[in-house]
Amino acid sequence: MAAEAASSSPPAAITCRAAVAWGPGQPLVMEEVEVAPPGPLEIRVKVVSTSVCRSDVTAWQSKVRSFFLLLFAGGLKCQAQPDLFPRIFGHEASGVVESVGEGVTEFQVGDHVLTVFIGECKSCKHCISGKSNMCQKLGLERKGVMHSDQKTRFSVKGKPVYRYCAVSSFSEYTVVHSGCAVKVGLTVPMDRVCLLSCGVSAGLGAAWNVADVSEGSSVVIFGLGTVGLSVAQAAKLRGASKIIGVDTNPEKQEKGKVFGVTDFINPNEMSEPVQQVIKRMTDGGADYSFECVGDTGVVSTALQSCSGGWGVTVTLGVPKAQPEVSAHYAFLLSGRTLKGSLFGGWRPKSDLPSLVDKYADKEIQVDGLVTHDIPFGDINRALELMLENKCLRCVIHMSQ
Amino acid sequence: MAAEAASSSPPAAITCRAAVAWGPGQPLVMEEVEVAPPGPLEIRVKVVSTSVCRSDVTAWQSKVRSFFLLLFAGGLKCQAQPDLFPRIFGHEASGVVESVGEGVTEFQVGDHVLTVFIGECKSCKHCISGKSNMCQKLGLERKGVMHSDQKTRFSVKGKPVYRYCAVSSFSEYTVVHSGCAVKVGLTVPMDRVCLLSCGVSAGLGAAWNVADVSEGSSVVIFGLGTVGLSVAQAAKLRGASKIIGVDTNPEKQEKGKVFGVTDFINPNEMSEPVQQVIKRMTDGGADYSFECVGDTGVVSTALQSCSGGWGVTVTLGVPKAQPEVSAHYAFLLSGRTLKGSLFGGWRPKSDLPSLVDKYADKEIQVDGLVTHDIPFGDINRALELMLENKCLRCVIHMSQ
Repeated sequence: MAAEAASSSPPAAITCRAAVAWGPGQPLVMEEVEVAPPGPLEIRVKVVSTSVCRSDVTAWQSKVRSFFLLLFAGGLKCQAQPDLFPRIFGHEASGVVESVGEGVTEFQVGDHVLTVFIGECKSCKHCISGKSNMCQKLGLERKGVMHSDQKTRFSVKGKPVYRYCAVSSFSEYTVVHSGCAVKVGLTVPMDRVCLLSCGVSAGLGAAWNVADVSEGSSVVIFGLGTVGLSVAQAAKLRGASKIIGVDTNPEKQEKGKVFGVTDFINPNEMSEPVQQVIKRMTDGGADYSFECVGDTGVVSTALQSCSGGWGVTVTLGVPKAQPEVSAHYAFLLSGRTLKGSLFGGWRPKSDLPSLVDKYADKEIQVDGLVTHDIPFGDINRALELMLENKCLRCVIHMSQ
Repeated sequence: MAAEAASSSPPAAITCRAAVAWGPGQPLVMEEVEVAPPGPLEIRVKVVSTSVCRSDVTAWQSKVRSFFLLLFAGGLKCQAQPDLFPRIFGHEASGVVESVGEGVTEFQVGDHVLTVFIGECKSCKHCISGKSNMCQKLGLERKGVMHSDQKTRFSVKGKPVYRYCAVSSFSEYTVVHSGCAVKVGLTVPMDRVCLLSCGVSAGLGAAWNVADVSEGSSVVIFGLGTVGLSVAQAAKLRGASKIIGVDTNPEKQEKGKVFGVTDFINPNEMSEPVQQVIKRMTDGGADYSFECVGDTGVVSTALQSCSGGWGVTVTLGVPKAQPEVSAHYAFLLSGRTLKGSLFGGWRPKSDLPSLVDKYADKEIQVDGLVTHDIPFGDINRALELMLENKCLRCVIHMSQ
């Protein structure tokens, strides 16, 4: 198969539409971009659907991306970098393989795939460990280029356009490393399953893999967006007896019920700190708490909301401001655990197919998280809806 | 048994020697104190040996004890309290039951016991859970009184003397709740097994219960005091392949070897941050890291020293200053876990007997942690040695 791919004539560059961000927070501009052919071990994907994740919007708005730098650098490379603009955002997507690069044996033209923002090489220390999804070769890409040659595959009139999170799905075509894509069945609805590419899976995995929620337990979830509602769904499927949702948007109360939330708290309507309310509701603290807002201050509240002795707090959100998590040591010394996860701890290639199966078998809900279907040409509306907290997931239909 | 105890004539007050602290940091003064009879469910213990724990010294020196207040109050009772002086410190001790209060069936006069600073009632939500040692009835006592009636059992010339951590073992006799004592065999050496009452057990439990150190793993321990060396011992017994000790005292290098430390780092001799050195030594970060210094800044370093994906950091120390633990969120999001424990997660009554058995069977080392044997009359020397970092454990012999 590899020999066949290698011996066929190499694919040519493609010209297509992409929504390009020319500067932080500036409305995306629909441009004609050139998409280079896939390099070795890469595939070029015709994007069918891409949903908008909050982290796309955070990165698009942000002038300082040093937050992410620490993730792999271990604390020493926190300096600012030059702005990575122009750039094509988007990472939560489904599509069809249009062409494959040299050495690709896993995919064929016509395969349906999900893109993933962290890959799985299956050969590094972390992939081999079986207990980590922090692939050392295809981990979180922060420089806006391909993992392989540190170059982009996009250009507008000859000017290079940066990539985002190894995917850049706000384009009709994109090139991704074959380690950053997962094959899905041809009958799975592409405009819904794309949500499993990031947010929904992150929530499910946080509850199942990271916290390991147990039957009959109490759970509190800060932030009932797509991720938080997916945590609720996962907790319900595990048989949690009390699932408390905390959100300042009163509309989330009804939505929460659909995904398993049993009790709703709007902090704005409380006259005392929310952790006190939760402690009373749970006889001393919840068994598990989840921070799905992206606010390090809420991490501390979540830690205070779970029980001493065995309480587990999981932080999932990417903070929009203050990157330091702070907590009084006594909350740890009294037996609480604070942990975090990216992509819910799932190893994308090894684990994502089983989630897609669960969706196909109607064991997990995805469709109810889509609040808006939006043609590609109106993509800025999706960003606005996200900024105004007026949506869960907006699915962008690339062919419309 | 209960009826017998109740029907016998009640024990009288005892007058004995105790080392009383009259103010923060002031040398202890040997006083004649009156020790009241044990109340219901209490026992009076003739202290045989008490070792000095760093937390005795920290509390003795501290004018502000608000750090501890949060442990059980959930964040709202952080205000300062009036100083709890005069006071009798000491909590890591062994002794003989001298008399028992009404309703005590578990102990008889003459029993050998270890005192414990957190008790186990076996009936509250936490004790019943089987997964917590944060007993709701006999948890960390912060007001210097008995759990039962909120009074002390000590007085000097009619003036009440506060207690410390439910024990107050710097006295020839003390009264403790029967839930805060554990029976030990008559042949176990009292002047050594007292170390299991707090520090050694805390270290063993942190490695076994809290981190659950696995065979072949890499471990880094910040602070090679009694607790840190006990973590090392426990990691070695679990078959850890690399045990890195970090301490600014070069003398700890040799001592560390005795307890299983395979590599020693003196941060003062390094030209780069210690976490960088550790990452290099462990191919990206240790599997487990332990903070045994009592410095919240070191907690952050410990977190940075363990591996993304699966690394676990356990914080054990009680900070002498800054009580807030702070960490860049990215260290959590990339799959690290931060947790803490008091007394190594052991449930004192349920678990401590098995540790005493291990000591009796020479499966764990305790004796090598005693650096000084000191007569009760010279107790201030033990405090000085601890302050000057010139000891591991000083054992105070009450009868000398």
